[in-house]
Amino acid sequence: MTDVTAVTRESAQLAIDAKTKPLGALGRLEEIAVRLAILQQTPSPTIERTRVCVFAADHGVVDEGVSAYPRAVTAEMTRNFDRGGAAINVIARANSIDVEVVDVGVDAELGTLANIRHAKVRRGSRNFLLEPAMTREELDAALAAGASSARAAADSGVHALGLGEMGIGNTTSAAALLSALTRQSAAITVGRGTGITDEAMARKRAVVDRALQLYGNRSEERDARECLRCVGGLELAAIAGAALEAARQQMVVIADGFISTVSVLCAAAIAADESVELLSAMRAAVFFAHRSAECGHGLALEACQALLGESARPLLDLDMRLGEGTGAALAMPLLRSAAAVMREMATFASAGVSRD
Amino acid sequence: MTDVTAVTRESAQLAIDAKTKPLGALGRLEEIAVRLAILQQTPSPTIERTRVCVFAADHGVVDEGVSAYPRAVTAEMTRNFDRGGAAINVIARANSIDVEVVDVGVDAELGTLANIRHAKVRRGSRNFLLEPAMTREELDAALAAGASSARAAADSGVHALGLGEMGIGNTTSAAALLSALTRQSAAITVGRGTGITDEAMARKRAVVDRALQLYGNRSEERDARECLRCVGGLELAAIAGAALEAARQQMVVIADGFISTVSVLCAAAIAADESVELLSAMRAAVFFAHRSAECGHGLALEACQALLGESARPLLDLDMRLGEGTGAALAMPLLRSAAAVMREMATFASAGVSRD
Repeated sequence: MTDVTAVTRESAQLAIDAKTKPLGALGRLEEIAVRLAILQQTPSPTIERTRVCVFAADHGVVDEGVSAYPRAVTAEMTRNFDRGGAAINVIARANSIDVEVVDVGVDAELGTLANIRHAKVRRGSRNFLLEPAMTREELDAALAAGASSARAAADSGVHALGLGEMGIGNTTSAAALLSALTRQSAAITVGRGTGITDEAMARKRAVVDRALQLYGNRSEERDARECLRCVGGLELAAIAGAALEAARQQMVVIADGFISTVSVLCAAAIAADESVELLSAMRAAVFFAHRSAECGHGLALEACQALLGESARPLLDLDMRLGEGTGAALAMPLLRSAAAVMREMATFASAGVSRD
Repeated sequence: MTDVTAVTRESAQLAIDAKTKPLGALGRLEEIAVRLAILQQTPSPTIERTRVCVFAADHGVVDEGVSAYPRAVTAEMTRNFDRGGAAINVIARANSIDVEVVDVGVDAELGTLANIRHAKVRRGSRNFLLEPAMTREELDAALAAGASSARAAADSGVHALGLGEMGIGNTTSAAALLSALTRQSAAITVGRGTGITDEAMARKRAVVDRALQLYGNRSEERDARECLRCVGGLELAAIAGAALEAARQQMVVIADGFISTVSVLCAAAIAADESVELLSAMRAAVFFAHRSAECGHGLALEACQALLGESARPLLDLDMRLGEGTGAALAMPLLRSAAAVMREMATFASAGVSRD
């Protein structure tokens, strides 16, 4: 960051092309390296300190019978995070990544858990078939909880922030939000989540289509903030808030799977509604970790690409559909490696290697 | 390894299914976890100590004008490895992976390099348009050099061994070897390697087709060892030797890109020719790191799948075509994470999480 001259796409490309390897031979790793040099404005980018934030909340819409697991599992899994036994804890430890779990709306008293950040807005979002999922105040509080995590990460010197979630029922909220943002029907946006029966799947589709009818036609203009408030969830809003603030801080943002991607899409849509500079910051900062096996993720990635450009091509494709930020954690070593390539590799000149 | 009862596919699958996540939600990471538990015969597999071996050698066939870079680059890049400035050094450091570079046939005096293992068989393989690339003694020596690296890794407690290479001209040798093993023409097996012109590409194809005529029809039976001797290279033979010995040692073997995959294919074909037990050990041990952008890699992977089964589906797809073991290094964190999932994740029972 001490360099006087700005790092441009051209200068970053020249730098990577001077490294001892055939032109372009590191493929997508080179694209990442160039983006990191531009984002951090240095020819020696660093991805050393990394963190995954996992936002947890419950969903009123679970009352409609849309999930394979009972609502209690959100709290049980939050306790599992607290003890370090969940997939994200294990994968993060194996890759030297911090984990911060944030209760933004779990329907249980979790105040005694020492390893959880407590930022509960409400014990679960409201059932959006009966009323909007959040009031304006609740939405603002959830967005602020996410932004606060991103600022705390920036203050701790975190270079890359993965965004994950836990919340029984949240593939339903995410599918409804995706439908609202893209005006696509439930037939395209709804998947099996944690693995529901055909019967529950039919209910879930009907719920999302009903939500579209309830809130979809209020105005001709799509208002991303209002979509999030009406059919989103507290952890989806927190992810959106975290993504926007992390982008403002020029930190790398890594979207995880279906729910995280829909939340980041909503953040990009909010930025597009409100500020050219913020949308541009999102374009520079956001990476997509993996292609989820959840139906609807492809559409979410396409919609992200329309707003954020090429960055929406995910890095991994491992048939995963767990959430918790597990995909984001697995993508961290790729970002770390790309930064190291830009920062540490010898050039043809410095190594005395013949060019051709 | 202290468990008394054997770990079977069924017991490993039961163990992963008991973890706190929806069934199968970690996708390919679960497949890896199950394979690691079986290979290491423990429900708590470990991928902690990891190493990439990079075998370097020159190729007589470079005299035919098949490469974009002069032969001297093999020695220059070996010096670059020695100083830690090449892509594999940088990526390995970023992911806590050891690197061992082995000179099995570089056409230069490199005895003074302190960080290189010296196992030179000959200063480059012979031009296979004029004579077989190796004598029987040279082939045996190159196979033994690779086996020796694998044994040294096992003795050092390495859990996973990536196999990489450096050698100007070696995509030509690998394409010829792939053609010989699969009886496919150069039109399918030859690619642009480090980035050659159309003219050089035509020469390269002609060289491979000529090699097929010279050695391809000697006998009806395909003899993998003889294919390797006639049109392979010293570093390709070393990789094959390392893969066979690592499989014997029940160590994880990670094939890298085009050249490494063709060498591992040749090792699998040698095993298929010579020993049912050894082929079975290869099936258990070998993982494929990534889908290379080099033409011919798809065919090599298909041929591997025919011999080794499902394991031939690569883990990453990042448009890379550098070699050096860089893809293998990038796949290591996935294996490390999969082992950690099997070893450290809580179960529904231990975490008190409701199943459904």
